[in-house]
Amino acid sequence: MSILFKNADILSVKDGRFEYLQCAYLGVEGKVIDYIGTEAPVKEYSEVKEMSGKMLIPGLVNSHGHTAMNLLRGLGSSLDLQQWLAIMWPIEDRMRDEDCANGMNMAILEMLASGTTSFCDMYMSPGHTQACIGESGMKANLTRVMMGGFKDTDYRLFSNRLEALEFVRQYDNAYDGRLRADWSMHAEYTIDAEVARKWAEETTGLGGRFHVHISETRKEHEDCIKRYGMTPAAWMEETGFFKIPTYAAHCVWCTEEDLQILSSHQVSVVHNPSSNMKLGSGFAPIPRMLELGINVALGTDGAASNNNLNMFEEMHLAAIIHNGYVNDPVAMKAETVLKMATINGAALQQRLDTGSLEVGKKADIVAVNLDAPHMKPNLDPLALLVYSAQASDVTMTMVDGRILYEGGEYLTLDKERIIREFEDSLRYLYR
Amino acid sequence: MSILFKNADILSVKDGRFEYLQCAYLGVEGKVIDYIGTEAPVKEYSEVKEMSGKMLIPGLVNSHGHTAMNLLRGLGSSLDLQQWLAIMWPIEDRMRDEDCANGMNMAILEMLASGTTSFCDMYMSPGHTQACIGESGMKANLTRVMMGGFKDTDYRLFSNRLEALEFVRQYDNAYDGRLRADWSMHAEYTIDAEVARKWAEETTGLGGRFHVHISETRKEHEDCIKRYGMTPAAWMEETGFFKIPTYAAHCVWCTEEDLQILSSHQVSVVHNPSSNMKLGSGFAPIPRMLELGINVALGTDGAASNNNLNMFEEMHLAAIIHNGYVNDPVAMKAETVLKMATINGAALQQRLDTGSLEVGKKADIVAVNLDAPHMKPNLDPLALLVYSAQASDVTMTMVDGRILYEGGEYLTLDKERIIREFEDSLRYLYR
Repeated sequence: MSILFKNADILSVKDGRFEYLQCAYLGVEGKVIDYIGTEAPVKEYSEVKEMSGKMLIPGLVNSHGHTAMNLLRGLGSSLDLQQWLAIMWPIEDRMRDEDCANGMNMAILEMLASGTTSFCDMYMSPGHTQACIGESGMKANLTRVMMGGFKDTDYRLFSNRLEALEFVRQYDNAYDGRLRADWSMHAEYTIDAEVARKWAEETTGLGGRFHVHISETRKEHEDCIKRYGMTPAAWMEETGFFKIPTYAAHCVWCTEEDLQILSSHQVSVVHNPSSNMKLGSGFAPIPRMLELGINVALGTDGAASNNNLNMFEEMHLAAIIHNGYVNDPVAMKAETVLKMATINGAALQQRLDTGSLEVGKKADIVAVNLDAPHMKPNLDPLALLVYSAQASDVTMTMVDGRILYEGGEYLTLDKERIIREFEDSLRYLYR
Repeated sequence: MSILFKNADILSVKDGRFEYLQCAYLGVEGKVIDYIGTEAPVKEYSEVKEMSGKMLIPGLVNSHGHTAMNLLRGLGSSLDLQQWLAIMWPIEDRMRDEDCANGMNMAILEMLASGTTSFCDMYMSPGHTQACIGESGMKANLTRVMMGGFKDTDYRLFSNRLEALEFVRQYDNAYDGRLRADWSMHAEYTIDAEVARKWAEETTGLGGRFHVHISETRKEHEDCIKRYGMTPAAWMEETGFFKIPTYAAHCVWCTEEDLQILSSHQVSVVHNPSSNMKLGSGFAPIPRMLELGINVALGTDGAASNNNLNMFEEMHLAAIIHNGYVNDPVAMKAETVLKMATINGAALQQRLDTGSLEVGKKADIVAVNLDAPHMKPNLDPLALLVYSAQASDVTMTMVDGRILYEGGEYLTLDKERIIREFEDSLRYLYR
């Protein structure tokens, strides 16, 4: 199976920077991009797709979220954080394996339609939700969220531990590598110190990556200092984490010393601007992280605190809110933000074969419509993507050379069935 | 001509607060809403529209912008403000009457498709662009932007003055009141003090409203203090403005004393969060303005500094960035923001017969699709609209009882012609 996209504008890469080709060709052989150029390729492709008026961009990577929290979308909005959590937790406690899968499937519909080709998830029931990755054709790094142990510090009885170990053992690199099984710990404030230490020890050396929340709120950050005499980042380092590749969500209240710790261990940071703004958490020091060479990716967080899974919105926010915060119109640039949403996310997931449109890379490709009134003129393609484009401008989403979404239709998934099952879960959870 | 919308969810009003009716009816007779209720009306309507899975909301009011700046969309992004202006001005200097109209027509396509029914514009050639309002069926308060006079303070020769006077005299309340002709002054820093004083005198008593920029940037605010020993708001009061109803864009750097001045003169403020963030201007003290009872509306500013005219994006930003800035998840609420984008904008335009869905009000109505994956579940309709919805969820836009946009089609405008003319202007401006 091979496909040639013709007459497309293509956001490719040259010497490590984006290169914009107009009216160009991109060829896909099997799962891999085998041609990019402004001249027609010599090779014959089995399918040719006319793409004039479309821009091909790398698939977006949503590097932090809790997808099944779309079952809680809109719940407790306009409440403060403690009231909000008090509403969330009893409903999450009721969630069954099938609810997690029904939520993730619905999230996949939303993500595919908005140009996301890969995501990172920290939630429950990954042994069950892994099938959503298999069926849909998307890429994901899933984890079993680890928390608790306060009442029962007997590590052997720490039940999530066995689920996580079994999940990673069984599913890492499943579905031809589209699924990666990672480790996680929710956060410093939701785990017993002794359980955390043992968990860090046990997971080191088993492969995989580590997904964690760090210093999302001021309270979390300051409470940790009171509890342990050090910040969450310092506590994690001291507890034995960061020995395997780690990605840390939020990092809003990280100090300069924290950033040095993250940098020295090559910890990636996931910026979640919608969630950080909506919940009043604050402004993560993203420009400083970038200066330090930290790999910063972008995520939506869960739909309960966003309230959607729209990476175009996150790009827009990441590109403008820091300018406003530091009163500098060039604090963040469109090019930087687009890298955060693509190649940096791929690096965090340790998928070095994707994240950009280059010959030899996996064909994880999104087509963006340039013909809408809000997309004219195209004087600056990167600015157009980051400041003007909407998720609804996505007309096609391809993963590993397979078209999963095109023109409002899902090619691997039964949308009606997924909506029906999602509504079944809603009825159960809110009964 | 009468239309009945049936089985719609309707965001109506009861006792000054939003009221959400499910599976309800809304009747329109001529230009006016004549029925809202959960029971079917007795009256027969000439057309019945099935609206299940749709939410009817009041049309959005974009209260500050320079629509024809969509001709400059994306230009100079990622440059600092001075470099950006240096690129903008020479192109704007070349703009002809027809370029302003071609830009506004394209902006109207974008605004109608994203649920905006009325807008305020500060730009050039209103005597020419007024025809865009006539043709499209939209509502707008247009102005001739007033600036200059530094080199030639002979007030009689101040050429924009005559254009503005003639425009207001000829067009205020044209097109059955859809068009309102307002006064404007660009800002304190772009006008000669003596010219400004005479302009304030001359326009007072002639009717209309006043459209102005106040304290958008720190530099503007501080330079004014150096120049006149007072802030822009104080200088305008002292110069003789605010005697007629005034709406002031930005007000980012307004002090508490400035807000007292604006409040005492019932000046409305237009918040432009995308523009203020992107250009690094900063955070307008919106929560404090609301506490003081100032009428705060919402605008996109021009597409050159946004870079689109998407009021759903502005609502989202207005609802979350202040939470992040003051570290309070309830600094702004969805309900407040929705009022800013509707009824507060209508009040600023002195259109008391619109801005909400109520019997007796003009039928300025937008239908929003609830069936997309990112719009489920609908646990909180206001949160769904402000935090989750996208401009592309708009399926219908009606102004004065007339459907102007529905399902991707424009009913009063020739989209292909408008795009062609817009591209003609681009060729001329960038030749």
